[in-house]
Amino acid sequence: MKVLGIVVEYNPFHNGHLYHLNRAKEIVKPDYTVAVMSGNFCQRGEPAIIDKFSRAQVALLSGVDVVFELPFVYAIQDAGGFAKGAVGLLERTRVVTDIVFGSESANIDFLTKIATIMIVQPEPFPRLMKEELKKGHSFPNARKYALLKYFELTKEMDPKEVLKIEKSNDILGVEYIKSLKELKSDIKVHVIKRVGAEDKDADFKGKFSSATAIRKMIIDGQWDKVTQAVPETSLRIISRELNEGRGPVSIQQLEQIILAKIRLMRREELQKLYGFSEGIDLRFVHCASKFGELDQFLSCIKAKRFTMSKIRRLMLYALFNISQEFLSQCNESGPQYLRVLGFSSKGRQLLSVIKRRSSIPVLSVCSLYKKVLQKVLKDKTNRFTVDQELFEKQLLLDVQSTSIHSLLFPNKSERSADRDFHIPPIIVG
Amino acid sequence: MKVLGIVVEYNPFHNGHLYHLNRAKEIVKPDYTVAVMSGNFCQRGEPAIIDKFSRAQVALLSGVDVVFELPFVYAIQDAGGFAKGAVGLLERTRVVTDIVFGSESANIDFLTKIATIMIVQPEPFPRLMKEELKKGHSFPNARKYALLKYFELTKEMDPKEVLKIEKSNDILGVEYIKSLKELKSDIKVHVIKRVGAEDKDADFKGKFSSATAIRKMIIDGQWDKVTQAVPETSLRIISRELNEGRGPVSIQQLEQIILAKIRLMRREELQKLYGFSEGIDLRFVHCASKFGELDQFLSCIKAKRFTMSKIRRLMLYALFNISQEFLSQCNESGPQYLRVLGFSSKGRQLLSVIKRRSSIPVLSVCSLYKKVLQKVLKDKTNRFTVDQELFEKQLLLDVQSTSIHSLLFPNKSERSADRDFHIPPIIVG
Repeated sequence: MKVLGIVVEYNPFHNGHLYHLNRAKEIVKPDYTVAVMSGNFCQRGEPAIIDKFSRAQVALLSGVDVVFELPFVYAIQDAGGFAKGAVGLLERTRVVTDIVFGSESANIDFLTKIATIMIVQPEPFPRLMKEELKKGHSFPNARKYALLKYFELTKEMDPKEVLKIEKSNDILGVEYIKSLKELKSDIKVHVIKRVGAEDKDADFKGKFSSATAIRKMIIDGQWDKVTQAVPETSLRIISRELNEGRGPVSIQQLEQIILAKIRLMRREELQKLYGFSEGIDLRFVHCASKFGELDQFLSCIKAKRFTMSKIRRLMLYALFNISQEFLSQCNESGPQYLRVLGFSSKGRQLLSVIKRRSSIPVLSVCSLYKKVLQKVLKDKTNRFTVDQELFEKQLLLDVQSTSIHSLLFPNKSERSADRDFHIPPIIVG
Repeated sequence: MKVLGIVVEYNPFHNGHLYHLNRAKEIVKPDYTVAVMSGNFCQRGEPAIIDKFSRAQVALLSGVDVVFELPFVYAIQDAGGFAKGAVGLLERTRVVTDIVFGSESANIDFLTKIATIMIVQPEPFPRLMKEELKKGHSFPNARKYALLKYFELTKEMDPKEVLKIEKSNDILGVEYIKSLKELKSDIKVHVIKRVGAEDKDADFKGKFSSATAIRKMIIDGQWDKVTQAVPETSLRIISRELNEGRGPVSIQQLEQIILAKIRLMRREELQKLYGFSEGIDLRFVHCASKFGELDQFLSCIKAKRFTMSKIRRLMLYALFNISQEFLSQCNESGPQYLRVLGFSSKGRQLLSVIKRRSSIPVLSVCSLYKKVLQKVLKDKTNRFTVDQELFEKQLLLDVQSTSIHSLLFPNKSERSADRDFHIPPIIVG
C-alpha cells in the first residue's frame, strides 16, 4: 500500500496547490493521499483567512483523502519546528510511505546533503555558522553564508547551488529531510519543482499567484482576480465562508488583542517565553507602548536579525504564552495526536488502518479527547508514545487558537468559541 | 485652615457635579478644595469616556484646587473598597478637614448609625445578614433587608428609613463614614441632598441628567442635549478630546480584548482572582466561549446575586489580573501615594503643605516615582507608612490601565501607552 503524505497550509487553496497535489500523485501513484495542514494560524504568524474546517473541505474536494491538523504549537514555528511537527505527524501515522514537497531548486541531492550537514555538523561548519550569526544575520541567511563558505572550503558540492536554496520551500525541504533522518524514518522523499509566484510575492501573477497575493485580493474584494488564481471548489468555499461572515480573517483584526496583551505583560513574563532573548523582549515592550497600530508596532520591532514572519510568530507566542520549556518539550517529543479535520469515503478506510497502526492516537471527535487519552494510557501493547500532559497542552492550544480565530470573524454571531468541540470532522464523498 | 475633600468620578463633569461642588463650598467655606478622582476606569467597571487628565482639567477650571488620582485598584471596587481608597487617600493628605458627599436621603444620623452597625456588627445583625445572603440577594440588597429586620427587632431607628438608602450615593456614604471611623479620622462629614437624575437613570433629564445619560448622548452625538446637561467648560474639554480622537471611550471597545483574555484563561487562573468564587469563574468561561459580543457575554453572566456593575468590575479584574491576595493587601494598607493629576495656582500652595505633612508621598511627576520611593524609604521621621511592593504594584496598575484606555482611542496615532510618564500634571490659573 502506497500512501502519499503532503504538508500544506492551503491559506487559501490555489492553482499552484492543485498542480502540486496532482503532480505528487503522478509521481507516487498512491493508494491514498494524506495531508497534514496548519490549523487556524499559519507559519507566517498570521491567522488563516478562512478556518481550518473549510480549508480541509477544499482539500478533500480536491483529491486529498485524509486531512490531519498540524498542532498549533508546530504550525507557528520556524521551518525547523514546523517540519518536526509535520513530518513527525506523518511518520507517526505509520502508514505514509512517500512524501512529496515543492522546491524551488528541485535538487534533492543537494537538499539532502545540507540536511546531513545540519545533523552531523561537520567541522568547520559550526564555526562558520557562529561567525555569520555574530554578524547579525537572520538564521536562514547565516546558514546560507556558512554553507557557501563550507562548500568553498570542502569542495564537497558546488557552492553556487547554495544560492538557489534561499527560497522558503527549499528551506522547509531541508528541514523535512532532516526531521525524517532524525526519526530514522523509511518514508521516501520526492521533490517537485515549484511553479508560479513565490509565497512572499504579494503581486497578482494570474493563474499562479501566491497565497499572499490571493489573500490580499480577497480582502480587497478583487474577485475577478481571485477567480483566476484559485480552483472553482476553493472559490466556492471561500465565498460561502465570507457570505456567512466567517472571513476574511486577517492579522489586522488582532491589533487591539495583541497590543493589550503586551501592554499588560512585564519584561520578566516575556522573557520566559520562547524566542524572547537578545533584547527582543525589550523591543516588544517598547514598541507596544509607543504605537497603537499593529503595522507600526511590527515595523518598530523589525531588525536585520529577524524576519517579519519570525516577529509575527513571536507576537503569537506572547498572546498564547508559549514558553521556552513547553516548546522545547514539544519539539523533542513530537505531536501527541492525529486530529482528523476531515476525510473522504476512501479516506475512511485508510483511517481505520491508521487507528490500528499509529503510534499516537487518532482524534476524530475532539470532544471525546479524554476518553481517547484514557484508552491510550491504559494500552498494554507499548504501541503508543504519548505524554498525557503534553497531549493536553497541545490540544488546549489548538482549541484556544480556534477560539481566538473565531473572535476575529466579521459576523459576531459566528464568534462562539470551542468550535473544535462542536464541529465534527468534514466528510466528503 | 479648612480643607474640603470630595470624592468624584466626573465621567463626565456635569451640572449636578458643579452644583454639588458649589454647595459643598458654601457649607464648609474651605480655604482649599481637594478632589480624589477615579483615573481612567470608573466604579461601574467601565473605561472613562475621556481620560483622567482632561477630567482633572475640568475639575480645576470649575473650582477644585488639587486633583489626586484614586489608584485604579480602588476605583474599580465596590462601594466598600472604593470608599476605603478614596477616604483613605484624603485622610493621608493630613490636611483635609471636611468631607462633603451627595446623598439621596441626606440623613447623616441614619447613615452614621448604619456605618456603626457595619463596624460593630451587633447581634442579631450578622445572623440576619447571613440569612438574606443565603436567599441569593446581592450584597447591597441583603444588607437592606437585614437592616430592615434589625431595626424592626431593635427599634433603634425607624425601619422605613432603610428603604431610602438603597441608592448608590447613600450606599457610598455609609462606606465613607465607615472608612473614616476605621481610620479614627478627625475629618468632619457633611451631606448634601442630591439633585436631578440618579446615576443609573439613562434617560435625558435636561439640566440635571445623569452621567450615564450624558455619556450615551455623547456617544450618540446628541450635542444639543449634552450642551444642556454639562457646564460650558466641561463641554469645551469634551469637544477638544473628541476632536483630537481621544474619545469617546466606551466599554464596547474592550469587546475583543476582554473576550480574548478570558478565552485564553483557564478556570484555575480565574479562581485566583478577586471575586471569582461561587461558580462565577465557570460562568465567565462558559459565557466568553458562547458569545462573541460583549453585551451578550455580560448578560449571560448576569445573575440575581450580582449587579451588572459588579460583573463589569470582575471583567476588569480578569483583564488586569487583580488577585484576591493583592486586593486584600490594598484594602488593608490603603493607598500608597498621592498622585497629582493637576492643581490650580492656589492648589500649588496647598500641595507644598501636603508634601510636608502627608503620610504617603506626593507623586507630582509620575516618571520620578523611583526617586520619590527611595526618598520615602530612607526617611527617618517615621512619618510615612509605605510598603515598597504595594506602592509599585498600585502604580503599575495605574500605568497599565492608562495604556489600555489609550488603546481604545478612536485616533490610532493617539494610542501610545505610558501617557502617565509623559503627561505632566495639569496646571490651571
